[in-house]
Amino acid sequence: MIKIAVDAMGGDFAPQAQVEGAMLAVKRNPDIEITLFGKKEEIEKYLTNSERILIEDCREVIPMGETDPMHAIRSMKDSSMVRMLKAVTDGSCDACCSSGPTQGLVVGALLIVKRMPGFKRFALAPVIPSMTTGQTIVLDCGANLEVKPQHLVQQAYFAKIYAEEVLGRENPKIGLLNIGVEEGKGRDIDKEYFKALSESNLNFIGNVEPSSILEPPCDILIGDGFTVDMVVKTMEGTAKSMGKMLKANLKKGFFGKIGALLSMKNLNRFKKQINPDEVAGAMIYGINRPVVKAHGSSNAYAFSFGIQIAVDSIRKQVIEKVREALENNPIEEGTDE
Amino acid sequence: MIKIAVDAMGGDFAPQAQVEGAMLAVKRNPDIEITLFGKKEEIEKYLTNSERILIEDCREVIPMGETDPMHAIRSMKDSSMVRMLKAVTDGSCDACCSSGPTQGLVVGALLIVKRMPGFKRFALAPVIPSMTTGQTIVLDCGANLEVKPQHLVQQAYFAKIYAEEVLGRENPKIGLLNIGVEEGKGRDIDKEYFKALSESNLNFIGNVEPSSILEPPCDILIGDGFTVDMVVKTMEGTAKSMGKMLKANLKKGFFGKIGALLSMKNLNRFKKQINPDEVAGAMIYGINRPVVKAHGSSNAYAFSFGIQIAVDSIRKQVIEKVREALENNPIEEGTDE
Repeated sequence: MIKIAVDAMGGDFAPQAQVEGAMLAVKRNPDIEITLFGKKEEIEKYLTNSERILIEDCREVIPMGETDPMHAIRSMKDSSMVRMLKAVTDGSCDACCSSGPTQGLVVGALLIVKRMPGFKRFALAPVIPSMTTGQTIVLDCGANLEVKPQHLVQQAYFAKIYAEEVLGRENPKIGLLNIGVEEGKGRDIDKEYFKALSESNLNFIGNVEPSSILEPPCDILIGDGFTVDMVVKTMEGTAKSMGKMLKANLKKGFFGKIGALLSMKNLNRFKKQINPDEVAGAMIYGINRPVVKAHGSSNAYAFSFGIQIAVDSIRKQVIEKVREALENNPIEEGTDE
Repeated sequence: MIKIAVDAMGGDFAPQAQVEGAMLAVKRNPDIEITLFGKKEEIEKYLTNSERILIEDCREVIPMGETDPMHAIRSMKDSSMVRMLKAVTDGSCDACCSSGPTQGLVVGALLIVKRMPGFKRFALAPVIPSMTTGQTIVLDCGANLEVKPQHLVQQAYFAKIYAEEVLGRENPKIGLLNIGVEEGKGRDIDKEYFKALSESNLNFIGNVEPSSILEPPCDILIGDGFTVDMVVKTMEGTAKSMGKMLKANLKKGFFGKIGALLSMKNLNRFKKQINPDEVAGAMIYGINRPVVKAHGSSNAYAFSFGIQIAVDSIRKQVIEKVREALENNPIEEGTDE
């Protein structure tokens, strides 16, 4: 039985979305058991089927707007997030998932669950929609704003294994997010990333422009944490603004209104494909156990896929395989810090 | 009479879009005269009204995929782009507009028209659609991938004057593109940009996340050339991919097809609002005369608005006012290179 710890109190629609998401995940995976961490009485309001779902009562919640995550993690020992992270550390659970504040979860993962030995810079790696392959792994989404080439290559190995094991991609292609496709494009650091990726054993296809963010010619898009976070936030924002604009425009005029009505089903399908809220979640690469950050605005459906990432990572032994890859591809002496 | 030089041969739809765009611009502005630089016989195919439109025959064209712009500008003396730039340098024209290759135009502007004295780092500043104000100035779009804080502030002064004079904004608001809104967010260099902008006389409103790229709380969005180019390319790419996805989705099923048909007018309006090809163009800040880069894929309508930027810059004496601002806001001694 795979045991998943879930922070039931983190997220804009907690605990309802988290509890309902857990029930969906249990239904989908007959071999998992979920422990919900949070206020028992609030969880029970929404828990209509407790088969393979346990509750661990916690009295504190780290708020979404927390500005001092380090302090919060250290002082709020009875918070749902800290208790969830402790459960994967002491081995009572195998992996965990939270929609709580990103910085809190990242700091908590580092302080409580700890880094994988040999993995130098952890990364936040969401899976975003792709028109070419269905899904693209994008990293690092803001965990380390600046990163050295050899550390970026380590992160790429993690992504490769995740793409192979969880997404089922064969020899996954990796592209470097850059302002132009030609070799030699970008800042000096981008040229160094290009060189390091070229010299690795990875299936590196070269630079990819962010204009193809939704239809890239690869399975994995990589870059430094600042750049990638800017790109992903731009994509999410553009999609949201366009959705608003489309809605406002479509309903103009009599025929427009009827047209919009007739197109409703198609428009909803479109919205689902592109809505960043439907993006299941981001795994924190480089932590000793699978720690998944689900979107803050996740609904039950989206959150259940955040849990799925945690489940699949355990089922496919992603962490163990990354450890092996790190041993087989050590980074050069003297360049590791 | 305001005299505009136009590169009739640059762009994906040249010379048709350029010639027709020139005719539109002349019709809209009774006080301008346009000189079209390019192959006379090709231009004449599309020139149906030559009132206030002259032709200067040039036998060469710098191709869109040019990989060595420096060499092209130096060797192709009879190219439409070089001849256009020479016309604004020798004073026979006041400003110019081209849809030709960006790097060629930038290099040509620097080599032929030359930098404004005292303006340290030129910038590429497109005007993109905004849901809040109609238009946002975004810079630097890839001219200088990395930039010092004092040079970024100079660029911001140029944008402020452009926003006041050409877009008619009062006390234009400037936001720094960054991964979070709070002060202290971003890399070290972003904190330096924040400090320099705060200490200037500009109406700096703080950090703006790229998630609000299409509805920012300000008139001007600024950042280093690498970051801003990544953000703008992501926005353009997301918009294009979403448009494709929407089209594919909307026509599904019988009712969908009818709905799409009834919504056609509204969908086209939506497309116009968001289509990056409708973005008129980018002015190169820091050059002695207004040099405008229109989108490579400009149609006649879009190109006419590229010309409009050149016209308005002359009419409102943007360059002269920037010179004045530079004199009144000198950058600190010893930090200018």
